Amino acid sequence: MIKRLSAEFLGTLWLVLGGCGSAVLAAHFGGDGNPLGIGLLGVSLAFGLTVLTGAYALGHLSGGHFNPAVSFGLWAGGRFSARDLAPYIVAQTLGAIAAGFLLFQIASGRPDFAIDPTAAGAFASNGYDALSPGGYSVASAFLCEVIMTAFFVVVILGATHRSAPAGFAPIAIGLALTLIHLISIPVTNTSVNPARSTGVALFAGSAAVGQLWLFWLAPILGGLIGGVIGKWLGAARE
Amino acid sequence: MIKRLSAEFLGTLWLVLGGCGSAVLAAHFGGDGNPLGIGLLGVSLAFGLTVLTGAYALGHLSGGHFNPAVSFGLWAGGRFSARDLAPYIVAQTLGAIAAGFLLFQIASGRPDFAIDPTAAGAFASNGYDALSPGGYSVASAFLCEVIMTAFFVVVILGATHRSAPAGFAPIAIGLALTLIHLISIPVTNTSVNPARSTGVALFAGSAAVGQLWLFWLAPILGGLIGGVIGKWLGAARE
Amino acid sequence: MIKRLSAEFLGTLWLVLGGCGSAVLAAHFGGDGNPLGIGLLGVSLAFGLTVLTGAYALGHLSGGHFNPAVSFGLWAGGRFSARDLAPYIVAQTLGAIAAGFLLFQIASGRPDFAIDPTAAGAFASNGYDALSPGGYSVASAFLCEVIMTAFFVVVILGATHRSAPAGFAPIAIGLALTLIHLISIPVTNTSVNPARSTGVALFAGSAAVGQLWLFWLAPILGGLIGGVIGKWLGAARE
Amino acid sequence: MIKRLSAEFLGTLWLVLGGCGSAVLAAHFGGDGNPLGIGLLGVSLAFGLTVLTGAYALGHLSGGHFNPAVSFGLWAGGRFSARDLAPYIVAQTLGAIAAGFLLFQIASGRPDFAIDPTAAGAFASNGYDALSPGGYSVASAFLCEVIMTAFFVVVILGATHRSAPAGFAPIAIGLALTLIHLISIPVTNTSVNPARSTGVALFAGSAAVGQLWLFWLAPILGGLIGGVIGKWLGAARE
Repeated sequence: MIKRLSAEFLGTLWLVLGGCGSAVLAAHFGGDGNPLGIGLLGVSLAFGLTVLTGAYALGHLSGGHFNPAVSFGLWAGGRFSARDLAPYIVAQTLGAIAAGFLLFQIASGRPDFAIDPTAAGAFASNGYDALSPGGYSVASAFLCEVIMTAFFVVVILGATHRSAPAGFAPIAIGLALTLIHLISIPVTNTSVNPARSTGVALFAGSAAVGQLWLFWLAPILGGLIGGVIGKWLGAARE
Repeated sequence: MIKRLSAEFLGTLWLVLGGCGSAVLAAHFGGDGNPLGIGLLGVSLAFGLTVLTGAYALGHLSGGHFNPAVSFGLWAGGRFSARDLAPYIVAQTLGAIAAGFLLFQIASGRPDFAIDPTAAGAFASNGYDALSPGGYSVASAFLCEVIMTAFFVVVILGATHRSAPAGFAPIAIGLALTLIHLISIPVTNTSVNPARSTGVALFAGSAAVGQLWLFWLAPILGGLIGGVIGKWLGAARE
Repeated sequence: MIKRLSAEFLGTLWLVLGGCGSAVLAAHFGGDGNPLGIGLLGVSLAFGLTVLTGAYALGHLSGGHFNPAVSFGLWAGGRFSARDLAPYIVAQTLGAIAAGFLLFQIASGRPDFAIDPTAAGAFASNGYDALSPGGYSVASAFLCEVIMTAFFVVVILGATHRSAPAGFAPIAIGLALTLIHLISIPVTNTSVNPARSTGVALFAGSAAVGQLWLFWLAPILGGLIGGVIGKWLGAARE
Repeated sequence: MIKRLSAEFLGTLWLVLGGCGSAVLAAHFGGDGNPLGIGLLGVSLAFGLTVLTGAYALGHLSGGHFNPAVSFGLWAGGRFSARDLAPYIVAQTLGAIAAGFLLFQIASGRPDFAIDPTAAGAFASNGYDALSPGGYSVASAFLCEVIMTAFFVVVILGATHRSAPAGFAPIAIGLALTLIHLISIPVTNTSVNPARSTGVALFAGSAAVGQLWLFWLAPILGGLIGGVIGKWLGAARE
């Protein structure tokens, strides 16, 4: 169990360090309006590749959840034991916070580095209303996070179904996370992962922390919905 | 059959929500000329990834058409039964409309959200002449949609041929859709899928609805041509 | 043989229509300096995806060369018969010209469409000196085309070696072409494929046609070098 | 052994020619602020694709390290013999220098080509403080290179573990390098590979050479850490 939890810790650390790191360090490179920066497209790709690479590296150890909403979704889908939920979620959240800490150490080596806690997306945090990158309402944010996480879990359950071709699941799942970011960064800066939201919010300031409730509630709700749908669909493939 | 149709409904919903969602929400992020937005490249990638992920998640249930023109093409290619055409197309179209509805709910959570029904590509709709993103004529639009859909179906038939390596088809097919968008978004905003066109046209206004005929006729014609070519080529591989 | 040559015709048509089509129609979308356009990155991806998708769709029929320099390289590498060289190259070149014709039909549906035969990269043509996108000399252009084609053929021979994992070759080969474009579009607009150069030069005007000699000579020389290297390396894997 | 070393020479040549070549030739295409250029996203993709394609082409010969830090990491992970370290590292470094030479020949064919040895990232060199693209401190640079290389080696060991699905490792490893560049180009221009740093520093001038110590020390330290972690994790999968 220690190695499974280590894998979840490291995988979530990689997800947050890579995904949020690309956003903090490289998205705006050269200043606003400079096309050298990787933009939302590069950040979307980075998030997906953390999961793709992490799943190939660590998936065989822990299943490669790296995300409390996914753990809940796999439980709802009948693929994960209820008694493992709590330790997995603790390991994931600690990994995300460790990533936030490491990213802060790297980012603060730039002389003009500063975090504006009132800015949307500060330190890659998630948010709604004034903290939504595109100014989306709390209702839009909630709906978007639920739908995106539900489809994410449907893809995970389908791609890891025992009738699915072996070895391709990390590609499908990682690129699903890229896709989700391509759609929804403007709405909430894209969470679909409560650990990812928590890991950076602690460094982004009290405003982001005050909105964390949505990024635990909506993704987990979406994960449960996706788990139920995926289980129903998967049963047809037996 | 209910699960097959559910898979087509969900897969087409995901295709339209993801592809058109990325266009509506993220393509122009930060305003015109801002390189943070994902642009046509990001939208192209998003469309392809909806099919790649949807096919890994749902393809084993329904074949993963998510597109009436593909269903017609597979029928012409001898891979799909004529009596399943109508239910598949209904499920696909309903999924696309559901996606348009959900996308409208999310997008309208932005205070300054508005749809200009006279603008090319409004709400990610397809069009020609005044509604073509690049101002292309109806003849160009028709030719482009026919050719692109024909090659799409040739790729689908080839990549799913029983002599093809197992498991790779969703990669080939999804990335074919990305490629098609990289080429043809300026011409028609890229359809190659009548359901996708319909799902957003209903929200984009009467101008887009008035041009829907082309985005049913040309992709289905292209699909039939691709099906015939693919069948002839595939027979050589027996 | 008619189906093998049809596959080469169609695959090369797809390569030129997709790769050059993305360059002509979408690279500069919205005007110079508009980040909505797909730029050199999008064109690079498009070229690679034409080969990736074409190889999954048609590779089992003809080997999926779609390129005279590759046919020469595979011959030098001991994987292709000398007597098939001529018919393959004719089919590839005809496919490329057909693609140029179709692309011209689509592109000319835009009211302000025009080809400036004195501009570098006109109608996606290849060139050096005044016709090099970045103003590179004929020596740089020649060296670059030789090296890029040589590595392309080394990748092809390695990825299709009988000891290589089955099914992955189209991914490796397609993405190798993407990589080659990411490096060398500024130098020559990237050919590494005499058929591709010919197919659009005929529509780009006499200046591009006058430089075609380099884009037959250098890629074929590079292909032969790559074939010899690849054969020597591959023999170690027996 | 001559063919193994040839494979390392060629693979590292390809890595540096492709990755650094895309940075030197294509990243800023059209001038600063021109979105036609491939930017940091395109360079990130190019680096990853050199490894993806090189590993499919050459990996079966030499293991496809193309990087002294990876060789050290695989040794620490119990997958590589200590007596092969020195010849591998010599072959890799010579390949990287050959790539620097070829790239210089191609790049200098542009009339206005010049290298400013005081500029950050000159000729795609790595650096910290005044030579960091984003102005990051030596401490940030060191920490970032250690962490990135450690995770790179964890991914390599996991994806090539004998319990991992066959054939996918080049995808996981190549895209891991893309991800690492998406995160860390602004910090150090991204090395994680002492040979890559050396190959271009020799052409970039004395300032870059003076900072090479960090790009040997930090990646190798990171590689050793990753090797130890990966070995511990992998033992759980036996």
